[in-house]
Amino acid sequence: MDLMANTLLAAGASPAMVHATEEAEQFIQLANALLINVGTLSPTWVESMKVAAHFAQKAGKPWILDPVGAGATAHRLEAIMQLMKLRPTLVRGNASEIMAVAGAAGATSKGVDSTAESTEALEYGMQLARTYGCIVAISGAEDLVTDGERLVRVANGVKMLQSITATGCAVTALAAAFVACAPEDPLLATAHAFAVFGLASEVAARSAKGPGSLRVGLLDQLYGLEEQQVLSGVRLRD
Amino acid sequence: MDLMANTLLAAGASPAMVHATEEAEQFIQLANALLINVGTLSPTWVESMKVAAHFAQKAGKPWILDPVGAGATAHRLEAIMQLMKLRPTLVRGNASEIMAVAGAAGATSKGVDSTAESTEALEYGMQLARTYGCIVAISGAEDLVTDGERLVRVANGVKMLQSITATGCAVTALAAAFVACAPEDPLLATAHAFAVFGLASEVAARSAKGPGSLRVGLLDQLYGLEEQQVLSGVRLRD
Amino acid sequence: MDLMANTLLAAGASPAMVHATEEAEQFIQLANALLINVGTLSPTWVESMKVAAHFAQKAGKPWILDPVGAGATAHRLEAIMQLMKLRPTLVRGNASEIMAVAGAAGATSKGVDSTAESTEALEYGMQLARTYGCIVAISGAEDLVTDGERLVRVANGVKMLQSITATGCAVTALAAAFVACAPEDPLLATAHAFAVFGLASEVAARSAKGPGSLRVGLLDQLYGLEEQQVLSGVRLRD
Repeated sequence: MDLMANTLLAAGASPAMVHATEEAEQFIQLANALLINVGTLSPTWVESMKVAAHFAQKAGKPWILDPVGAGATAHRLEAIMQLMKLRPTLVRGNASEIMAVAGAAGATSKGVDSTAESTEALEYGMQLARTYGCIVAISGAEDLVTDGERLVRVANGVKMLQSITATGCAVTALAAAFVACAPEDPLLATAHAFAVFGLASEVAARSAKGPGSLRVGLLDQLYGLEEQQVLSGVRLRD
Repeated sequence: MDLMANTLLAAGASPAMVHATEEAEQFIQLANALLINVGTLSPTWVESMKVAAHFAQKAGKPWILDPVGAGATAHRLEAIMQLMKLRPTLVRGNASEIMAVAGAAGATSKGVDSTAESTEALEYGMQLARTYGCIVAISGAEDLVTDGERLVRVANGVKMLQSITATGCAVTALAAAFVACAPEDPLLATAHAFAVFGLASEVAARSAKGPGSLRVGLLDQLYGLEEQQVLSGVRLRD
Repeated sequence: MDLMANTLLAAGASPAMVHATEEAEQFIQLANALLINVGTLSPTWVESMKVAAHFAQKAGKPWILDPVGAGATAHRLEAIMQLMKLRPTLVRGNASEIMAVAGAAGATSKGVDSTAESTEALEYGMQLARTYGCIVAISGAEDLVTDGERLVRVANGVKMLQSITATGCAVTALAAAFVACAPEDPLLATAHAFAVFGLASEVAARSAKGPGSLRVGLLDQLYGLEEQQVLSGVRLRD
């Protein structure tokens, strides 16, 4: 949650972290988007997540699902599939997670880190997007964002991000903020969130000595990136 | 909790983070002050918080309340008001939070970030301090610390702190440590905690490139500030 | 958890943070080692911890216990002693924690920070190791690692690590990763984890300005340390 909240604040958004079922409805009224991350799952949290997703849907606000470690346990996959029924606007995961959610038999997930390449998951992701009428974003060397028909590829980012915890969660949080600002085109909003996050990591990597200083520089750049840098640095392929 | 604990360690204090009701009484014996932060509220935590505050009161030890997001939901405000009955030594919030706790009709809070200026909340804060016989501290461009009669204004700090998560929580933690060291004058102890935290951020901001490096420098400075720097840099107005 | 996960990722390991009882068995199958840290204890977590330790034992996988704040409360010590019955491969604590676990009457623990020197705890630690057939590691100015007969002393590290939260937890996590890689000699694996962590902090300390930048540099160095640096910098005494 630390990196997610700092990512959002650095990018100019206003996050609030809420766990209690009792608070879901009122916080949804205040928010422009809801992000549900199943990272550290617990029975009471699953209940809160479902209540929150329900209220977001009811209020017509975008809600985003990060199915962390989807393939790792049956319990986790079941909780995720219950959330999918509440129709997220966007699902963001790595290749293994998206393949697990899409019910891809044969896909394996070693904990929260991906063991499959994102391109392999594209077919599963497009099918998932069509089935649930949502955007699916697959993180990888090249990020893939699809609504089941259209596909945007994002080629920003550096490999060392994988050596920092919660960078996947953080890019999902940034996507939630972008979707909140442009709910009329969640596909393009998500693709731009990936591009900006990746670009910030590229600029930060120039002076980083390892994952510790990369994390610091990433937040500095998310705060400081100029419009011109973004326009010239983003690498999207529609 | 990460930034709060690192703030306290950098400043030379010795924090312990405790959630379980069963541990409250014994930990209070070991501690010189108790800090309750309602940030990520949950029903079991509220129970622990009340038990902990009760034991702190019974042991005659200062206890400090951070009413994060006080105005955001009715559930949250109710939990906070139950804690207020247990007579905190100090309540620290932003203008919206303090106004919500003071029952100021018309005050609004957008999640955990303040939408009102701290000076607007001063009247509400002074009334709250008198009603509960506690110190009230209001964070803002200028921080205000009052016991309901006396008012100390603190003009240290930099705006970019707002782009780092948990800096409000961290300054409350530092205030708890200062109050623990000078329980005979919690008003001045709190004001100095604000001033030192703000001063550390000012020194750090000179070489920071954004919120990532500001957070790093803040901890470095809390650890390294010399007495002479503090004496000459603190901007208090009594 | 933030520093622990980043320590493991920086060092090339693949962490997953799991709380739910329902997920314990399946995650153990995927993992090469289990780490249980009792830091922020709660009744439901204690149950999950016991279930997880049980499955690790059943699967013949190493499991590691970090008895944070062991002596601080009776409730905490009781939970830890229940976990000890499930035979951890390694127990890592500071002197006070190890003395508390060893039932050393007269040992005191002020929260999670050590008040006794690690050498004083050596006798207690060796006895604990023999009683439970486990490795015991005691953090201090000089780290001590023992199986009850053999003793390895590690003289790497810098004092400022104590001003960063969770560095004790992080070195335990690194030891878990090392034991996972060399389960045939958990004593030497643990000693080397301490040495590498300490060495990384020494290199980082050369350019650190305080605990904020030391934490950043520590992660950079854990990622970047060259084999030659490790071979020449490690200070082990068998």
